[in-house]
Amino acid sequence: MARIAVDMDEVIADALGEHLSRYNAKFGAELAKSDLLGLHIFDLIPDEHVGAAIDIVHTEDFFADLPVMPHAREVLEELSKSHEIFIATAAMEVPRSFRAKYEWLLRHFPFISPMNFVFCGDKSIVDADYLIDDNARHFLRFKGKGLLFDAPHNRNVQGYTRVNDWLAVKEFFAHHVLPV
Amino acid sequence: MARIAVDMDEVIADALGEHLSRYNAKFGAELAKSDLLGLHIFDLIPDEHVGAAIDIVHTEDFFADLPVMPHAREVLEELSKSHEIFIATAAMEVPRSFRAKYEWLLRHFPFISPMNFVFCGDKSIVDADYLIDDNARHFLRFKGKGLLFDAPHNRNVQGYTRVNDWLAVKEFFAHHVLPV
Repeated sequence: MARIAVDMDEVIADALGEHLSRYNAKFGAELAKSDLLGLHIFDLIPDEHVGAAIDIVHTEDFFADLPVMPHAREVLEELSKSHEIFIATAAMEVPRSFRAKYEWLLRHFPFISPMNFVFCGDKSIVDADYLIDDNARHFLRFKGKGLLFDAPHNRNVQGYTRVNDWLAVKEFFAHHVLPV
Repeated sequence: MARIAVDMDEVIADALGEHLSRYNAKFGAELAKSDLLGLHIFDLIPDEHVGAAIDIVHTEDFFADLPVMPHAREVLEELSKSHEIFIATAAMEVPRSFRAKYEWLLRHFPFISPMNFVFCGDKSIVDADYLIDDNARHFLRFKGKGLLFDAPHNRNVQGYTRVNDWLAVKEFFAHHVLPV
């Protein structure tokens, strides 16, 4: 049994899709994920939109209705039968998100105990064997093994084991977990 | 430099005092901390009050105005100059507390970055050298050293290094931290 910590946004929750959708609706834009290879949304929009684009995320409801990333639920439910799954999200960056993130997790991942939810900032505090995250900066002081979950913004990041989607995560753990 | 994780309730925040005060006001009781040696409040009150006593904690404002435990601020501020301080609270047990706990920490401990706040359930996820906590159950799977912060309910718990108050914490770290 391994302990696997899993990030939320861009890993199990499609926050980027929701962000683009709300940004496009507000400014009549047509940004797509494919425009964001190697970039964050803030790299691509006019300076005068940045404040509003940040505000979109800092609302009570932004995190309430995010779509679940494809296959995240089925793969995590299967992994949870033989591994200890924790959800580790940098919620402290968006304090208004606490309640919505908590309820979203209860709704979509009812097989994970809330006792295994971790709302933090600096993820070096997470004691786990693996961390699945789209932000490689969280791996720098993490003592376990980082799995970089593919996202447009990290497409050019090198030096980590990359998993392209949840089927790749399933495949990884079918072969790589150390015996107890 | 060591990494020190610090619990909130009964360690830096006087939640028990507030709980007793609200309970006494509601039921015309006169419970005091000294009545609770080796006991939790629920061990001592009539069965028919237990639901209401739980509800007292599960409100939005319970955690907003808790008194700071004596010397907690000054000792933590001093320790934060040479150590990495994280606040690790089992907030997942009381989801309505998220916002109030966050704001309480910002107000009373402004020298600790919110990136070092950890709202969790199972504290075995915390990767730190020390954990200061009043609940010994959190030490069972914690890999660092637990310091049991004295509280009425844990007065009979044996087998851990006990710190009676924040001056004792200061004294402990003046002598016990390993060299880097």
